[in-house]
Amino acid sequence: MARFANKRSRKAGLPPGSLIHVGEKKAEKTKITIIDYDEQSFQRKEAANVEECFVFKETATCTWINIDGVHDAGIIGRIGECYGIHSLILEDIMTTAQRPKMEDLGNYIYVVLRMLSSEKGGDEVQSEQVSLIVGANFVISFQESASLGDVFDPVRERIRTGKGRMRKMGADYLAYSLIDAIVDNYFIILEKLGERVEVLEEELVTDPGQKTLHDIHTLKREMIYVRKSVWPLREVISGLERAESPLIKEATGIFLRDVYDHTIQVIDTIETYRDMLSGMLDMYLSSVSNRMNQVMKVLTIIATIFIPLTFIAGVYGMNFKHMPELEWRYGYYAIWAVMLTIGITMVVLFRKRKWM
Amino acid sequence: MARFANKRSRKAGLPPGSLIHVGEKKAEKTKITIIDYDEQSFQRKEAANVEECFVFKETATCTWINIDGVHDAGIIGRIGECYGIHSLILEDIMTTAQRPKMEDLGNYIYVVLRMLSSEKGGDEVQSEQVSLIVGANFVISFQESASLGDVFDPVRERIRTGKGRMRKMGADYLAYSLIDAIVDNYFIILEKLGERVEVLEEELVTDPGQKTLHDIHTLKREMIYVRKSVWPLREVISGLERAESPLIKEATGIFLRDVYDHTIQVIDTIETYRDMLSGMLDMYLSSVSNRMNQVMKVLTIIATIFIPLTFIAGVYGMNFKHMPELEWRYGYYAIWAVMLTIGITMVVLFRKRKWM
Amino acid sequence: MARFANKRSRKAGLPPGSLIHVGEKKAEKTKITIIDYDEQSFQRKEAANVEECFVFKETATCTWINIDGVHDAGIIGRIGECYGIHSLILEDIMTTAQRPKMEDLGNYIYVVLRMLSSEKGGDEVQSEQVSLIVGANFVISFQESASLGDVFDPVRERIRTGKGRMRKMGADYLAYSLIDAIVDNYFIILEKLGERVEVLEEELVTDPGQKTLHDIHTLKREMIYVRKSVWPLREVISGLERAESPLIKEATGIFLRDVYDHTIQVIDTIETYRDMLSGMLDMYLSSVSNRMNQVMKVLTIIATIFIPLTFIAGVYGMNFKHMPELEWRYGYYAIWAVMLTIGITMVVLFRKRKWM
Amino acid sequence: MARFANKRSRKAGLPPGSLIHVGEKKAEKTKITIIDYDEQSFQRKEAANVEECFVFKETATCTWINIDGVHDAGIIGRIGECYGIHSLILEDIMTTAQRPKMEDLGNYIYVVLRMLSSEKGGDEVQSEQVSLIVGANFVISFQESASLGDVFDPVRERIRTGKGRMRKMGADYLAYSLIDAIVDNYFIILEKLGERVEVLEEELVTDPGQKTLHDIHTLKREMIYVRKSVWPLREVISGLERAESPLIKEATGIFLRDVYDHTIQVIDTIETYRDMLSGMLDMYLSSVSNRMNQVMKVLTIIATIFIPLTFIAGVYGMNFKHMPELEWRYGYYAIWAVMLTIGITMVVLFRKRKWM
Amino acid sequence: MARFANKRSRKAGLPPGSLIHVGEKKAEKTKITIIDYDEQSFQRKEAANVEECFVFKETATCTWINIDGVHDAGIIGRIGECYGIHSLILEDIMTTAQRPKMEDLGNYIYVVLRMLSSEKGGDEVQSEQVSLIVGANFVISFQESASLGDVFDPVRERIRTGKGRMRKMGADYLAYSLIDAIVDNYFIILEKLGERVEVLEEELVTDPGQKTLHDIHTLKREMIYVRKSVWPLREVISGLERAESPLIKEATGIFLRDVYDHTIQVIDTIETYRDMLSGMLDMYLSSVSNRMNQVMKVLTIIATIFIPLTFIAGVYGMNFKHMPELEWRYGYYAIWAVMLTIGITMVVLFRKRKWM
Repeated sequence: MARFANKRSRKAGLPPGSLIHVGEKKAEKTKITIIDYDEQSFQRKEAANVEECFVFKETATCTWINIDGVHDAGIIGRIGECYGIHSLILEDIMTTAQRPKMEDLGNYIYVVLRMLSSEKGGDEVQSEQVSLIVGANFVISFQESASLGDVFDPVRERIRTGKGRMRKMGADYLAYSLIDAIVDNYFIILEKLGERVEVLEEELVTDPGQKTLHDIHTLKREMIYVRKSVWPLREVISGLERAESPLIKEATGIFLRDVYDHTIQVIDTIETYRDMLSGMLDMYLSSVSNRMNQVMKVLTIIATIFIPLTFIAGVYGMNFKHMPELEWRYGYYAIWAVMLTIGITMVVLFRKRKWM
Repeated sequence: MARFANKRSRKAGLPPGSLIHVGEKKAEKTKITIIDYDEQSFQRKEAANVEECFVFKETATCTWINIDGVHDAGIIGRIGECYGIHSLILEDIMTTAQRPKMEDLGNYIYVVLRMLSSEKGGDEVQSEQVSLIVGANFVISFQESASLGDVFDPVRERIRTGKGRMRKMGADYLAYSLIDAIVDNYFIILEKLGERVEVLEEELVTDPGQKTLHDIHTLKREMIYVRKSVWPLREVISGLERAESPLIKEATGIFLRDVYDHTIQVIDTIETYRDMLSGMLDMYLSSVSNRMNQVMKVLTIIATIFIPLTFIAGVYGMNFKHMPELEWRYGYYAIWAVMLTIGITMVVLFRKRKWM
Repeated sequence: MARFANKRSRKAGLPPGSLIHVGEKKAEKTKITIIDYDEQSFQRKEAANVEECFVFKETATCTWINIDGVHDAGIIGRIGECYGIHSLILEDIMTTAQRPKMEDLGNYIYVVLRMLSSEKGGDEVQSEQVSLIVGANFVISFQESASLGDVFDPVRERIRTGKGRMRKMGADYLAYSLIDAIVDNYFIILEKLGERVEVLEEELVTDPGQKTLHDIHTLKREMIYVRKSVWPLREVISGLERAESPLIKEATGIFLRDVYDHTIQVIDTIETYRDMLSGMLDMYLSSVSNRMNQVMKVLTIIATIFIPLTFIAGVYGMNFKHMPELEWRYGYYAIWAVMLTIGITMVVLFRKRKWM
Repeated sequence: MARFANKRSRKAGLPPGSLIHVGEKKAEKTKITIIDYDEQSFQRKEAANVEECFVFKETATCTWINIDGVHDAGIIGRIGECYGIHSLILEDIMTTAQRPKMEDLGNYIYVVLRMLSSEKGGDEVQSEQVSLIVGANFVISFQESASLGDVFDPVRERIRTGKGRMRKMGADYLAYSLIDAIVDNYFIILEKLGERVEVLEEELVTDPGQKTLHDIHTLKREMIYVRKSVWPLREVISGLERAESPLIKEATGIFLRDVYDHTIQVIDTIETYRDMLSGMLDMYLSSVSNRMNQVMKVLTIIATIFIPLTFIAGVYGMNFKHMPELEWRYGYYAIWAVMLTIGITMVVLFRKRKWM
Repeated sequence: MARFANKRSRKAGLPPGSLIHVGEKKAEKTKITIIDYDEQSFQRKEAANVEECFVFKETATCTWINIDGVHDAGIIGRIGECYGIHSLILEDIMTTAQRPKMEDLGNYIYVVLRMLSSEKGGDEVQSEQVSLIVGANFVISFQESASLGDVFDPVRERIRTGKGRMRKMGADYLAYSLIDAIVDNYFIILEKLGERVEVLEEELVTDPGQKTLHDIHTLKREMIYVRKSVWPLREVISGLERAESPLIKEATGIFLRDVYDHTIQVIDTIETYRDMLSGMLDMYLSSVSNRMNQVMKVLTIIATIFIPLTFIAGVYGMNFKHMPELEWRYGYYAIWAVMLTIGITMVVLFRKRKWM
């Protein structure tokens, strides 16, 4: 539940641009990693303090500063100062319940995305905020914690090996690569959700129960959650593509269109799953009412056959002095005949109505 | 209920621009507070009468006139005259059921918003109209009463201390600050609603009852109400941002975009809650029909087992003279055997059908 | 029902512009009222025949010709001829099932609206067509009957007294005033509907029944009807505002925007009521199924307790010769003990399952 | 059902522009009628073969060639050749399951519409394709059969008599007149459907049954069908109005706007009917569940009163040797008293719960 | 189920443009077929290896290279190199779960579509990805396997015979022909689905059962699947039509508009089927609840008649010493009279309530 809430209330009343961390504190200590490269050189280091980043500001090489942990206002503030980042943007970075968005501020572009993850064994999809500051020759990425950060590892590896385009292209291509890594990760989450949909679908046919219903609802809520994280991405990426900023070079356009297509595909798949879950819910409800129907039929058949017969037996259990049938020799056999006739007629009628 | 109605009927037939208060009278006496400031100076005073405001019209400093209570046509009229405000706008200020909107009238911009509040212990979200007149060097804000007015206190405090940008920027930034304060307040309301959604969700799993249903519906209605107040704000703020008026300076643009993002987030959250409440309603209804199913099964099992047995007992309770079984020594034991057989068969059948 | 149908079939096959009245004939005789005014003068008269209007065509003063009754092709035709109105427009005026629309024909603007009314005691909202022809210095208004016409009385009064802007501004302002009078009237209708929603809502909580359901559906249909009449108005008024016609002066723009806002508010309120009615329907249905559940539980409790007991009583009512229990001295008391034990066990079980 | 299918499969694989008739063959023989007119002259003839049409191509008069039957590829092909019509258009003419559309091909405009009809006594609305080729001084209309063709008779009559504008205006006005005739016809169909809605609505209140449900569904399907035929017309006509083709003269604009308004009204009415039918379905379902509730209550009342009483009677029907009550003189009367007390208590309880 | 999933996860982390086949491997060996033609010449050959294609690159004739099987990264890579195709496009070709799209890359246009097929006897619609690279004088088409490839046979035949426009027009017309062949094939799939809808509809009236429900849901899912494949095509084709690329000649425009119309028709039909299936689901559910009602009525009638009678019989089965009625001579006959009266009264009451 807490996933859906925006715990912003404690910021109410503060001036805009106040650097206060909003959200769960996920990392103990802020960790800063710097990767600096151009076509020839490659350098990677962990910065002990934030000031170590500043020397890379002036170099012509492409610099990627990755910051794990956004709860330390001091660090975020000093980076913002050094790179000339607007205080509202810094505030957004620290407020970890942002909707994905993209803002072009002239000297740099600010992008917020949400990274999804689902723990092993766990049912809930979790999300974490990733902020990117894309400048002319640097990208600063902010993650809430390092725990989910390994989706960026392949990008790091590609920079290190220097294979492919990575090192030949600039900061915008690096930003694209990071976004692409996050979107690729969505497919993994979606496959997991898809498998759960598949399992549920079979359960629905073989053994539907109260748990099935509960699972359908849980999955529906996961879909609401994932959708909320992914849907605005569409606009974000098409905004990047159409940006008239010189920071996004033309050659990167086709890559952005590619990741845009992937986003559309993710959204498409979510919508399809939602449609399927709605269909499954309908199906569950109608199977419940079908079973109720079955139960009612059994009750009705039994009651309708035996209640009249019991009445007849009751009649001849009465203790009136003068009951001529009782005296008759074959009375007992006759009454059995009557009762059997009634019973069989009932069964035939039920067969006709297809109740049996 | 009254929250949803527009009690405008008593204005029907009056000429446009008639200054008649429509709405509940929330403040006893109109209270006027003036804050006048520039980068160096700061002055705050409570005006005994409306004429005290007029001297600030000519000064170059930035003036914020806050008026609590909009039921006094005389006061509203005189302010309107002094500041050259169109009578239709004055009418809108006094008609406290406005939909949020923004109008650019050249010399000033008129903005209406709705401030939300929920009393402690109370379930209903209440709203109040806040009107802003934004001129070149003044902002006039109208509130229905002072009771909710404390969301503006942090703004007052920031002006007083002179920290941050507040005093360096003009009337448009002041207007932004007031809007931002109201939007920030929405997050608080939403968190409260979110907590109620959370509570309901647990109740739905542990102990759903008629009250749960009622609460879901109440919350749904609160959502309709909040949504109605917030939804149009989106257009209002993007209207301000895109306004070609010289009253909105370029530097304020990024702040307006920021509050716009917050508004989108509020709307997003409302929609998510609505989705969740719909899901909860579905879940409640299907849990009701599931319990009905349980009840029916119990009834059917009991009736189906005992009705035939009662019939058999009835048969041997008949008083026919000639009933050979009755004479038989082991008749009674035999009939018990028959009845037990039938009963056990039934139970086995029900087990197979998973009714037990 | 007839309210929803367009009885246009008898016009099928006729050439466009054929002057045939379509709709219910609501007025016995066409009544023509002329109001002619400028800032200094004011004149009002009832015209005995249509030709009396024609002299006002040439005057520089502003003329308002109000025609009650649109069934007389002769009168409509002659007015059309005199004022150069296109035959298709005349046809529209006489076909009283128009959707609100606005058409700019160069020399004049044609506006159709629907006036709503609800009779006292009656449940149904009725609507009537009002057509306006707005020229340079004249407005011709057509109403189906004079019966609903009194919403224009305040406008007449304002012209007569000469207070306010009315006489200073031209024909476009007069047209605005008439539209505003009609839209103001919508608020009255909506308040009445709102009260009925409120009453229903209480009834739903205190004493829901078949009638409640019926009333919800009736109100829903009223909403469909009102919505159909009001929804297109939005476009009509924004069309007037954006019209590049010299007939609409710039000074009237702000008034049109004001009435546009009112229209949006009316639509908003209708949508809110629709949402609320849907919610109420859901609530009613689930309260019905809740009560069904209650009924079923009672039945099940009674049946489940007594059917087995009745069986036991039946067993010892059998007439077998050899039934040892019957001979036992304390048999009767023992069997009561057994039956009480079973009964109490059942009650305890039901308590546990929260059925009692 | 077949109405909804596009039997295009036998064209799959053929080159575009292949002249193969797709659809039911509705006319035995193709019938060609030529009407040639200008302001002075009028000529009407039935052409024995298609070549007779060709002489009219060069004349300055306005020519209307009406072709009943589109299954003969030879005839369609030769007309296409003579008038220079693109083979894809000819293909569309012969494929009688087109969605309404409009295409401007420079020398001529191609318009497809659907004519609706409902046989007397029959429940299903049928539709037929009407294609129009509008050239500078000719209109060629294609109908599937002559059977529904009489909606064009009033147009023919108006040309013959020469009254009104018809003969003074050109081919575009003729095309408009034909479209207008078809749209006018929609109102007749809608009135019939509206009457059925009305009848159903009464049935729903007085005597709802399985048939009512079936009829609601049938009408809903008719609405889907009619909507599918009419909805795209909106675009078609606004396309014609906005066409920059010299073939559509400016004077025809107002007439196209008029028929556009009619189309909007038709669509509006269909949507209203759909809304009403949905409401009726809801109402039907809730009335079913209400009646179920009634039935259940009766069952519960009877069972709850008599099952305990029957148990008591059963107890005193037992044959235990020692049952002191049986010996008591007033035992029988006492037991009646007990049973009456129980029965009356039950009735009072049910009254309290409003079950009786 | 697997149809809905995007098995992209194993690509996560790879650099963009990595040539890895994603999807089921449907063809054993890649098969390359070359058709080279101009107005005079025609040549067709199966290429043993991919290099054979390259000679055609320079020729002025129009070349169609058809590749069945997209799992071989080597072949796809070498073709891409030769024809200068961007690695992202090659990646898309090999990732067989693309959403239909169209991309203009200057030198060539890339189009992805989905070809639908439904096996005989099988219920599921399958889809396969078809990619087209449209250059100035060549088209390269990629299919997942040759198995579904016969929809292109008529196009091959038309090129071979040289009849019609095919050979006179260029590569863009060839591309159009291939798209048209695929869209034509949709109609066949839709007809099959339509027949199943029809069959279900009859089943719903004659003999609805659990299977009907299941089939409705299955068909609904097929519709979701087909819709997902077809819906984006609309944009693709209108994108091609509006493309400002010199690769699409003006003469091809009308053909693209034609296939666009077909796509709209396919989408329209799918939406209609979805609407119909929803209606059928509603109908099924209400028929289930109707039958439940029937069952309940029978139960209630039987129980309500016989339970009170059984009680009466029980009363006179009691063994009280003093029961005066039992001694009465006509007691037995009187009690029969009472019971018959009660029974008949019940029946009359049920008749009145229309339960019988």
